[in-house]
Amino acid sequence: MARTSFLGDLLTNLYGRGRWSSGGDRRSMEALCTALLSTAGEVAGLRLASAIFDKYRAMSPEEKLGFFTFLNERLDVDSSEVAKLAQAYSEERSPGNFAALVQSAEPRRQELFRRLHQAPGATTELVAARVDLLGMLKDHPELKRTDMDFVHLLRSWFNRGFLRIEQIDWNTSATLLEKIVAYEAVHEIHDWDDLRRRLHPADRRCFAFFHPTMPSEPLIFVEVALTKGVPGSIQALLEEDRDIMRPEAANTAVFYSISNCQKGLKGVSFGNFLIKQVVSQLSQEFPKLDTFVTLSPMPGLKRWLETLDGDAKAANLLAGTATETEAEALAARYLLDAKRSDGFPQDPVARFHLGNGAMVHDVHAGADTSPNGMAQSCGLMVNYLYDRSQTEKRHETFTGEKTIAASRTVRSKARSEKGAGQDKGAPKGKAAKAETAPTATE
Amino acid sequence: MARTSFLGDLLTNLYGRGRWSSGGDRRSMEALCTALLSTAGEVAGLRLASAIFDKYRAMSPEEKLGFFTFLNERLDVDSSEVAKLAQAYSEERSPGNFAALVQSAEPRRQELFRRLHQAPGATTELVAARVDLLGMLKDHPELKRTDMDFVHLLRSWFNRGFLRIEQIDWNTSATLLEKIVAYEAVHEIHDWDDLRRRLHPADRRCFAFFHPTMPSEPLIFVEVALTKGVPGSIQALLEEDRDIMRPEAANTAVFYSISNCQKGLKGVSFGNFLIKQVVSQLSQEFPKLDTFVTLSPMPGLKRWLETLDGDAKAANLLAGTATETEAEALAARYLLDAKRSDGFPQDPVARFHLGNGAMVHDVHAGADTSPNGMAQSCGLMVNYLYDRSQTEKRHETFTGEKTIAASRTVRSKARSEKGAGQDKGAPKGKAAKAETAPTATE
Amino acid sequence: MARTSFLGDLLTNLYGRGRWSSGGDRRSMEALCTALLSTAGEVAGLRLASAIFDKYRAMSPEEKLGFFTFLNERLDVDSSEVAKLAQAYSEERSPGNFAALVQSAEPRRQELFRRLHQAPGATTELVAARVDLLGMLKDHPELKRTDMDFVHLLRSWFNRGFLRIEQIDWNTSATLLEKIVAYEAVHEIHDWDDLRRRLHPADRRCFAFFHPTMPSEPLIFVEVALTKGVPGSIQALLEEDRDIMRPEAANTAVFYSISNCQKGLKGVSFGNFLIKQVVSQLSQEFPKLDTFVTLSPMPGLKRWLETLDGDAKAANLLAGTATETEAEALAARYLLDAKRSDGFPQDPVARFHLGNGAMVHDVHAGADTSPNGMAQSCGLMVNYLYDRSQTEKRHETFTGEKTIAASRTVRSKARSEKGAGQDKGAPKGKAAKAETAPTATE
Amino acid sequence: MARTSFLGDLLTNLYGRGRWSSGGDRRSMEALCTALLSTAGEVAGLRLASAIFDKYRAMSPEEKLGFFTFLNERLDVDSSEVAKLAQAYSEERSPGNFAALVQSAEPRRQELFRRLHQAPGATTELVAARVDLLGMLKDHPELKRTDMDFVHLLRSWFNRGFLRIEQIDWNTSATLLEKIVAYEAVHEIHDWDDLRRRLHPADRRCFAFFHPTMPSEPLIFVEVALTKGVPGSIQALLEEDRDIMRPEAANTAVFYSISNCQKGLKGVSFGNFLIKQVVSQLSQEFPKLDTFVTLSPMPGLKRWLETLDGDAKAANLLAGTATETEAEALAARYLLDAKRSDGFPQDPVARFHLGNGAMVHDVHAGADTSPNGMAQSCGLMVNYLYDRSQTEKRHETFTGEKTIAASRTVRSKARSEKGAGQDKGAPKGKAAKAETAPTATE
Repeated sequence: MARTSFLGDLLTNLYGRGRWSSGGDRRSMEALCTALLSTAGEVAGLRLASAIFDKYRAMSPEEKLGFFTFLNERLDVDSSEVAKLAQAYSEERSPGNFAALVQSAEPRRQELFRRLHQAPGATTELVAARVDLLGMLKDHPELKRTDMDFVHLLRSWFNRGFLRIEQIDWNTSATLLEKIVAYEAVHEIHDWDDLRRRLHPADRRCFAFFHPTMPSEPLIFVEVALTKGVPGSIQALLEEDRDIMRPEAANTAVFYSISNCQKGLKGVSFGNFLIKQVVSQLSQEFPKLDTFVTLSPMPGLKRWLETLDGDAKAANLLAGTATETEAEALAARYLLDAKRSDGFPQDPVARFHLGNGAMVHDVHAGADTSPNGMAQSCGLMVNYLYDRSQTEKRHETFTGEKTIAASRTVRSKARSEKGAGQDKGAPKGKAAKAETAPTATE
Repeated sequence: MARTSFLGDLLTNLYGRGRWSSGGDRRSMEALCTALLSTAGEVAGLRLASAIFDKYRAMSPEEKLGFFTFLNERLDVDSSEVAKLAQAYSEERSPGNFAALVQSAEPRRQELFRRLHQAPGATTELVAARVDLLGMLKDHPELKRTDMDFVHLLRSWFNRGFLRIEQIDWNTSATLLEKIVAYEAVHEIHDWDDLRRRLHPADRRCFAFFHPTMPSEPLIFVEVALTKGVPGSIQALLEEDRDIMRPEAANTAVFYSISNCQKGLKGVSFGNFLIKQVVSQLSQEFPKLDTFVTLSPMPGLKRWLETLDGDAKAANLLAGTATETEAEALAARYLLDAKRSDGFPQDPVARFHLGNGAMVHDVHAGADTSPNGMAQSCGLMVNYLYDRSQTEKRHETFTGEKTIAASRTVRSKARSEKGAGQDKGAPKGKAAKAETAPTATE
Repeated sequence: MARTSFLGDLLTNLYGRGRWSSGGDRRSMEALCTALLSTAGEVAGLRLASAIFDKYRAMSPEEKLGFFTFLNERLDVDSSEVAKLAQAYSEERSPGNFAALVQSAEPRRQELFRRLHQAPGATTELVAARVDLLGMLKDHPELKRTDMDFVHLLRSWFNRGFLRIEQIDWNTSATLLEKIVAYEAVHEIHDWDDLRRRLHPADRRCFAFFHPTMPSEPLIFVEVALTKGVPGSIQALLEEDRDIMRPEAANTAVFYSISNCQKGLKGVSFGNFLIKQVVSQLSQEFPKLDTFVTLSPMPGLKRWLETLDGDAKAANLLAGTATETEAEALAARYLLDAKRSDGFPQDPVARFHLGNGAMVHDVHAGADTSPNGMAQSCGLMVNYLYDRSQTEKRHETFTGEKTIAASRTVRSKARSEKGAGQDKGAPKGKAAKAETAPTATE
Repeated sequence: MARTSFLGDLLTNLYGRGRWSSGGDRRSMEALCTALLSTAGEVAGLRLASAIFDKYRAMSPEEKLGFFTFLNERLDVDSSEVAKLAQAYSEERSPGNFAALVQSAEPRRQELFRRLHQAPGATTELVAARVDLLGMLKDHPELKRTDMDFVHLLRSWFNRGFLRIEQIDWNTSATLLEKIVAYEAVHEIHDWDDLRRRLHPADRRCFAFFHPTMPSEPLIFVEVALTKGVPGSIQALLEEDRDIMRPEAANTAVFYSISNCQKGLKGVSFGNFLIKQVVSQLSQEFPKLDTFVTLSPMPGLKRWLETLDGDAKAANLLAGTATETEAEALAARYLLDAKRSDGFPQDPVARFHLGNGAMVHDVHAGADTSPNGMAQSCGLMVNYLYDRSQTEKRHETFTGEKTIAASRTVRSKARSEKGAGQDKGAPKGKAAKAETAPTATE
């Protein structure tokens, strides 16, 4: 914040308000980018970068597509040059040959992004530009090349060492609290009273990551409830008139909502580390906490049920007439058996938590009866359990062997369904593996 | 600081003090590096990185050489693979082919460095390791390849947007002040009283850059004197009993000492931007300041004089018997005419300030009579002038055409020497250019 | 905050949680107070003070009355002792006699309050106790003696030098913002959106005073609108869809709401100084501001109108059928002529601003059409003008000669009424004075 | 600091630099004081206060004496008025009579001091003025009356609730560290290296109290060494090359130097509370600490020895020829037996620590061989022990019955001396009491 305005002041001061802040530069976008890539002047570079951002912001969607196409095609790698220099380096591994090869193999747009990134407020501008780019990928998949360069650089700029964690509570500024309301992606926050119930009571916590160049923008946040025992429904957690507990008396921390805030940072992951940092902080503050668990949606459940043509129980669940037992059996089967072509679970939330080293702990029918909860997951929710002594091992087993760690309860619920619905065609190999892999169960 | 210890706590908390902090991992350095490159586990990665740093710190110089040789040879680019993938990408510019090419052309040690950089305190460790590497380059020039990768990453991590400027004064902590004393590279600070005279008086300023991951380590600092008129000697500036001036009455800011603090960041330049930021801040604080000038040494003067075999005046200056006029004439000639094979000035300080867009403003004999000042520059010093309306143009003229911007005074002093010593064999082409290039003179 | 909990920790640490925090002390309130007055032990004193606060908080209203009666009667001045010591001091003005006299003339409850004030959190407790006391004064006017001692000490503890001013805006914590909503005493804040409209737009400001021992409790706050010209209605200022102005373009700052937050600090005045501090801060931030004005209610107008039996225009205004001209004429007359028996204005808001050195600038009909505004002031509002070059002189003329400074506009509005309604019986002496006192008019 | 300059800005802003800051007011000091007492204008009051401080600072010592005499005589209590009002209040205890009496019995200079205290920076000015007054008391004992009023108000302004404790270490600013060097009153700090040895090592601590109106001025500070066992000499503690200990391994905290920094706050005591707060903080940080002890000088020892005319051992000790046993015996006797006429110990340091509830733990010969240590205490030092479970009881026994708590060791050392030197004339009553009072010994 301070930095940004300071640099702005600096430029204004060095060149006068008129010359700097007016988008006076009438060269084409291509000319500006070429100029930025070729200048060695630091201040000239800042001015060009700023002019490019000004111009970009004023572009129509078509013009933006043109701009990214320019980056994609004209600032790409020259592969014949690379081949030639690779050959030269094979012949003589001199530092000069090395430098030439490495430089030629880096798309020139990476250097452009880096130079743009020097301007005041550039991080925010680039993250916003990437949102535009992501919207183009479906119709223009070749732009994925440019997006790869974006991700490469964003990962470096958002290196974990630069992040700071902050607790969000009732002492947080209204400015930031408004953003929490806007960014909450899982269980909508209806108004300030609702927000207060999430953040203020002694048995509630919320933590977010921030980056020094975007000090008033959360990157990701997690909402936590401190409870006795593992809860089976979001309604109970968010009830208006519930009893508030002394946090020292809690034995369980429930991560019931995790929201990524910046679409433009897709592919730069913060969630795993946020969860582990919060587990660590809460453990220190409340030594009696011994269970760290999520209460999560199953966003792909309904779509999967719809693929089970002719399955009577699935039809019941979709129709809202399934018993609790039937519902939970189907949900357990979905989590354990429904796989993508690469062998990993279909459910994106499952992939996230299992990839972090959690296990499937339990499933609950009637756990989220909000319209959204019914529409996505037929009201079902799942607990993923983070057992600190096992997360690393589970992470590796999941990543390597694609084994899904699951509790006896969940496996038994899944089995009851399969016993009943034997040959419904779900792939069974992995599930069987889950059942027998001893390290993957409680 | 806080961050570092927080991450340390996190790891301790996740794994227990014993398992984490003991260098319990007895695998070889190569095995650890390979494991780090292949793990997908975030916490496993932190632990491996920390083990690698532990092991590195305990290594003998020979072992460190072995380690860097391993990085240089074994984690290099596979150029035949690159050539093959460049060919494939030429044939089909798919995102997949692109990703494969770009990845293969990046030396694997870059990814290793990036993963190491995630560990608590890693920035400091890596900067220290680079100091070791720099010491090996002379005898092992092939390691420059690894050093190039180092510089590439350090530039990204020390991106200007992450730096914050701080004023160093008598309200600064003793811890930091001790570092200023230690890092001062131009005019030694003898004791706390000397330090106080540099920082505390109303007409003195000191500014430093800091990076968020090394909060108690300055990266670079500059000492500034606010004066009336451009000073011609360092003795006058640092005099113990001088009169202290109201800073509002000053018209000139003198940058009389700029010190880079981190050897391991060689090649990552901060000085240009620091000077401009300080110019900007001082301009805002003291609107009457109209002259921004350095008082700088000429570290290469003496060596250059020694190359002028048979030049009587040069011999006089070396012997300490030259007149002031003779001395200044030689110094002016040195700055304008003494060039490297690439056409840029021999003097490193001149290259720095001219490259930033400054001009040679004046030279002074008897300006630094300290032992060091006599040994390096025969007591001579030079003012470089930063004229904000000209810096960008001068920067580009210097960088592009290698033109040295110089005041009439300096050109006239140089000419007097050449008039007198006509055929002393100094290359005259560039100097002639300086004299006639109108934009390059006051 | 920190302090409070620190002291709490200290006591816990020194004596163990059980011994300290349990209200274990079963002595009577009188016995505890006597013990506190006689102990010389610092820690013993803290413990007794804390026990007294515990006991006080648990008291019924009757018991609290008994407690204050005890303070009032038993810890009073011993006037015969005072008379004796005054005599002794008359005879020999020795330091010893002086000390004895001064001490005897100070009611012992003052020393009790001072000792109570040493305990952690005592300021808040004492301010709360005074709220209780204030509620008893009507039925028990003799307790005013104790209240005088309270005020004497509170003025010293809330010495202006200890206050800090803070801007309240959208970066303020929700905790504090909730208090602003609760304490707003003039124009109710309906919800968070309403609050946002008061604090967040670029042409709005809010400032509050805080005291170090009550860091999360505002003492007083003022809401300010930056405008072009002096506004004539609160509706226009608070309109939902109004255009927001660049604050640099404003020439007028309007203080449209000032709320004291702590009933227990009645008689300790902060408003005058807050207004002047805000005038000073805004002048520095926005040099173009040249008019500082309030938009204030006339809380006593309606009651005064009701006393004007038989006045047809007053009846019209009360009935809501007066013309704008008639309404403003009556309001002007009220401000200039309606006096208390001591010669000062009947209107409390007028007394406050005129006492601060402001003048009556204008009156507006239909300016506050809220239920509250209609009920108190028949919809009328008044601007008081703070002219920095005149405030001190006006303050002294008002305080000394009871002269009301008023603009030509206001005097002319008042005259029109009196011309029309000649002999309505309003006291005319002072108004006449206002008209002729040249220094008191614009 | 911020506050001060803010108020200064405010005044400048309200009245223009010229009118405010010039000491333009040419009225006499008496006239100014009278004007300040009679003005009701807040800003006028600030201006008068500032003019009074300006004038005071410019006064000669004689003029200052005249000023304090004016305060003492002319702004005193009117005792006949007080007697009259006391009589009136005896007759009718109305709030009005009460107010009149209380006000008349307060010396008018108290109100003057309070009004002066409102000005920017007034606290510092008043504390400085009191230093002047203290210097006059010896020759002008009648001024003690004015000094009593000073102390009364200073105690209220420096109420413990306003103090904050801060650790002083190597991260403290040079500005503050210079003050620590200047204010150290017990064991001189020779230079920055010496200072570093006191503050920086892991087994050293320093804490100070600060007041919000004097943020860069410490009020009092204490230096602490963390050790194993109770040390018997200051040389060992301050040795240059001593081994530094992990603070977690210490069992003893030694308070080896306590310095009051503000002469003008004489009579406002901070030491007792500082020690207890530090004991509390260190206990929490290092739970293994079980002994809190001082290493203190005996500033009155030498003078007392000189009164023991004809005592051979005392003569030996004064001559530097006493054995260690003899020296310690005399020192123990001094602490236990040498009393003032009021029955309290002659030694001021003993009065301080015993009054805080400490006990005499041990005495050591050869414990401070510095010139100052030899001159004051013949090289002897004493440990006072703070046992948290006993301090309150000991405080009360000391204050009430004047009993000196002492360890068996010390009593035995004292006895050995008395056994040997039976009838040397020391008063024995109290010592006997100490020996037999069971609660006063370990």
